[in-house]
Amino acid sequence: MKTLHVELGERGYPIHIGRGLLDRADLIQAHLPGKQVMVVTNEVVAPLYLERMLASLAGKETGSVVLPDGEAYKTMDSAMAVFDALLGRRFGRNAGIVALGGGVIGDLAGFAAACYQRGVPFIQVPTTLLSQVDSSVGGKTAVNHPRGKNMIGAFYQPRCVLADTDTLNTLPDRELSAGLAEVIKYGFIRDPEFLAWLEANVERLLRRDPEALAYAIERSCIDKAQVVAEDETETGVRATLNLGHSFGHAIETGMGYGVYLHGEAVAIGMCQAADLSRRLGWIGDDEVARVIRLLERARLPVVPPRKLDADAFLEHMAVDKKNVDGGLRLILLKSLGEATLPVAVDAGPLRATLESYGR
Amino acid sequence: MKTLHVELGERGYPIHIGRGLLDRADLIQAHLPGKQVMVVTNEVVAPLYLERMLASLAGKETGSVVLPDGEAYKTMDSAMAVFDALLGRRFGRNAGIVALGGGVIGDLAGFAAACYQRGVPFIQVPTTLLSQVDSSVGGKTAVNHPRGKNMIGAFYQPRCVLADTDTLNTLPDRELSAGLAEVIKYGFIRDPEFLAWLEANVERLLRRDPEALAYAIERSCIDKAQVVAEDETETGVRATLNLGHSFGHAIETGMGYGVYLHGEAVAIGMCQAADLSRRLGWIGDDEVARVIRLLERARLPVVPPRKLDADAFLEHMAVDKKNVDGGLRLILLKSLGEATLPVAVDAGPLRATLESYGR
Repeated sequence: MKTLHVELGERGYPIHIGRGLLDRADLIQAHLPGKQVMVVTNEVVAPLYLERMLASLAGKETGSVVLPDGEAYKTMDSAMAVFDALLGRRFGRNAGIVALGGGVIGDLAGFAAACYQRGVPFIQVPTTLLSQVDSSVGGKTAVNHPRGKNMIGAFYQPRCVLADTDTLNTLPDRELSAGLAEVIKYGFIRDPEFLAWLEANVERLLRRDPEALAYAIERSCIDKAQVVAEDETETGVRATLNLGHSFGHAIETGMGYGVYLHGEAVAIGMCQAADLSRRLGWIGDDEVARVIRLLERARLPVVPPRKLDADAFLEHMAVDKKNVDGGLRLILLKSLGEATLPVAVDAGPLRATLESYGR
Repeated sequence: MKTLHVELGERGYPIHIGRGLLDRADLIQAHLPGKQVMVVTNEVVAPLYLERMLASLAGKETGSVVLPDGEAYKTMDSAMAVFDALLGRRFGRNAGIVALGGGVIGDLAGFAAACYQRGVPFIQVPTTLLSQVDSSVGGKTAVNHPRGKNMIGAFYQPRCVLADTDTLNTLPDRELSAGLAEVIKYGFIRDPEFLAWLEANVERLLRRDPEALAYAIERSCIDKAQVVAEDETETGVRATLNLGHSFGHAIETGMGYGVYLHGEAVAIGMCQAADLSRRLGWIGDDEVARVIRLLERARLPVVPPRKLDADAFLEHMAVDKKNVDGGLRLILLKSLGEATLPVAVDAGPLRATLESYGR
């Protein structure tokens, strides 16, 4: 097991990464001060891991909420189902919430934990690559609104992140690739050395070579933890983690939540961001080709859906947390391995990317 | 105008108290960094003050959400109506929210501000006595759940509180009295000198003598700001502000939100808490009589509703944020002018109070 730390003073916490951690009652219970614990999970993860999770909570008064699977259920209604369960059991302010699942479950359960009685302790137990390398770390919690991804949420840090890499054995190939999109992102935005490693090792990751996966997860978490420690509430550098996300969120919202996995939409968005960065003269054709090629090798889509034209993109991108006073702002690439802070972009080049790239 | 400060470091803010502050565009706009501002108010307050509020926001891109009046509308559905309005206008992360109204509007709009895009700036413009002396200060925001008051919420501080005492001229007598319950509470829990002043001046307050009201509001805000500065997230002394609230919340939830005003339910609850404190030997008959007498003089109810028997009280009190691991905890009186921290109470004396006091 490896243990990293997110350095946030009294809100700091450990990230444990390793095999078989689901059964480590000692690690899990160390971060749950109260007797009562509610596990939030979904219909796909529950049959695989809920029983083991509850066994690791032996001695606690436990309950569980099993939601339907998918981004389409990351809604306020699902959060209300968690509140109903907590109040139905009369769980108090020192009750704990455990998020057992992927990014949707982590974001939703974290938001519920942030709001229930104005905040209860919670633990992230991510079971997908995407959640292990990205969404479980850093305290961004949210539910979606029909008009925009993650529009209702909170910054609320977990007490601990427990990434059991064995859970990736049951992950569908498509979700493994979706997770790789966020792994590769760290290479593009801040870690050229890791990018080179990924270009040399992406096939090992697709084969689920345990050593390669463990390294990629650890390196991603180190990158993420550094950015979060520097800028918890995204007033600066944290926004760079959103490379490709403004385009990606438009794809997710515009196509309907769940049609594209989040990582797939982000992969396409990163290609669009690279294309736009080239139009602005910051990177060249070769760099754009490297971006596209690596994502393709990770078996990710790199072309935007035909159904969404430039106007549709612009409409959905108008609702984005990085925008200021109604003006669009994007994360782009200054070079391959260095992202910009949010920048206002002229309508001309943006429209050119939306109308030309991948069309 | 008087200005107090809530000392919370970078989350600290001013409380301005005085006449005609609604028209002080300078004070209001100083705390709104963005161009976009959404005013959240209700159907009673809007015809009285919304136009003046919007005039003080001249130069901004403004919108408004007008909710129905009353505690029954402090719901997640109302919060969603605010999110819908914000997203409908494509308001961004630096948009401001102004809460224009009483405690329900302040709690709800504050919660919406805490969650919208993970937090946007907001300003409290309380227009009732209760909200000016209590709920607008301190950053407790929430919506109700059918099973319990304020069960879904956040600690989220406003950028500024603007208490225009002229707005009390339009306040119905019943709401003035409800506000006095929270004013009197400060005397009971921590401020014996203020308690003596209130016993000498309660009729002046009921007559709306401007000088007496201004003093009571200022003194209450000083008490509240001190407690909040000491314990922002209620791990200790802040809980004493909940004297009578466990009983009171049971009345509000048990009778249906809105049947009793919050201050009325708290007045009854403080009498019950005093009665229980006497049973535990902490205060005497004379002190209980002083509690009841002052609240009666403020034209507040002091007897619990017949419809709620002891079992109903206990059922609703089982859902309370002060409870720990399922065990009931209450704020009681050590003496008149000094509250306890949350204490576990034996079932016997509690049941005796619920079955005997006021029956």
